[in-house]
Amino acid sequence: MGDQDQSPYQNQNQNQDYVGLESYVVIHNIAKRHNVGTLARSATAFGISEVILVGRRDFNAFGSHGSTCHIRFRHFYSLSDARLFLKEKDCDICGVEITDNATAVGSHPFRKSTAFLLGNEGSGLSAKECQVCDYFVYIPQYGCGTASLNVTVAASIILHHFAVWAGFPERTRDGNKFVVAERPVHKVGRNFCTESAESVTEERKLKRENDAKNGFFEEMDGSDSSNNLLNAVFGD
Amino acid sequence: MGDQDQSPYQNQNQNQDYVGLESYVVIHNIAKRHNVGTLARSATAFGISEVILVGRRDFNAFGSHGSTCHIRFRHFYSLSDARLFLKEKDCDICGVEITDNATAVGSHPFRKSTAFLLGNEGSGLSAKECQVCDYFVYIPQYGCGTASLNVTVAASIILHHFAVWAGFPERTRDGNKFVVAERPVHKVGRNFCTESAESVTEERKLKRENDAKNGFFEEMDGSDSSNNLLNAVFGD
Repeated sequence: MGDQDQSPYQNQNQNQDYVGLESYVVIHNIAKRHNVGTLARSATAFGISEVILVGRRDFNAFGSHGSTCHIRFRHFYSLSDARLFLKEKDCDICGVEITDNATAVGSHPFRKSTAFLLGNEGSGLSAKECQVCDYFVYIPQYGCGTASLNVTVAASIILHHFAVWAGFPERTRDGNKFVVAERPVHKVGRNFCTESAESVTEERKLKRENDAKNGFFEEMDGSDSSNNLLNAVFGD
Repeated sequence: MGDQDQSPYQNQNQNQDYVGLESYVVIHNIAKRHNVGTLARSATAFGISEVILVGRRDFNAFGSHGSTCHIRFRHFYSLSDARLFLKEKDCDICGVEITDNATAVGSHPFRKSTAFLLGNEGSGLSAKECQVCDYFVYIPQYGCGTASLNVTVAASIILHHFAVWAGFPERTRDGNKFVVAERPVHKVGRNFCTESAESVTEERKLKRENDAKNGFFEEMDGSDSSNNLLNAVFGD
């Protein structure tokens, strides 16, 4: 246990350079919709700012254990629109893929706020998806029994490393569990999860700053029925 | 990216002190049997030696993507028998739980070959389970939306860190996938997965070294019907 004191993990919480860093997950046409539910649970555990869905809007919240209510989802019809949004936020786009030039995630090749683009469960990142990435990370494997990891497992390991690197403040605990926030109060029904007042204000600010074509969420009091539909699947 | 060269990860593969290290996963009465399948996929990815089932023998291989054929499973009826077996192998037993004295896994508090004891999905490790542990690790969380991680996600992050710390040699890749070994040849049928000749030899050696009461697997040509039954669920 001697190396504990020298670990880079211990210092990063105190490093002021890391303040304001954010992480995002970008999911492009994920094949197994139930993977999004478990992914949402890890995403909130590791402090990500938003889950960005590109292409198909629908998913299954199974496995989220209610986490989807605490996560902001954003939808774009195209990858280039998602890229534009992230670049306006000065984010790196990091592909999670075993490419020749990918860096092992444990070496923490991060530089600033980062959006992690996950490949489809079967085929990984396509050539088109790779083109929007600034760099790539991969998770080393050591055994003979599987070609790749489950997509949620892979995303969780990556997001965990980013949170450690970024020095996100650790969540308060109560006994042997982390404290879960109250569900947002403006709840329309069991399967509806609305934005908090704070997030609505932020959303409006973002709207002013960005092009309307990027497909932002409307607040729940808006009239966009497709966004209501998307919100409807957030509950578990 | 400047801290990459100083990362402890880069050096550990060359550290001869780490040769011969092994990792194990110990599952005691896991509630959701389908979790074992996905866990098996991560377990082989991160080079674990065996999955040890304590208590109930049955599980569901869904989610393993065939990985269960490449993993050695061992069963014990009691936690104290499992502990005896692991201590004869000079293993630490590390509980994965958010206890007051748990260390964040990223600081790599490992000392030697280690078996990781996972808690039940709902309640975590019981007092009795905590008693067999030499120390505890936990995975820091940062967001407000979940009290804990999915059990497979948690195990995967822990095993990933141990493999990095232990300097396990990385698996060969073919394109953007890691190479999967052939399925063992002595296959009785689709749902049967037998031991390789090498593992049978090793098994026999272990048998000589250890007390028969510890509940070792028999080879498939043996007459133990309950072991055959256990093997029968390894296929997917």
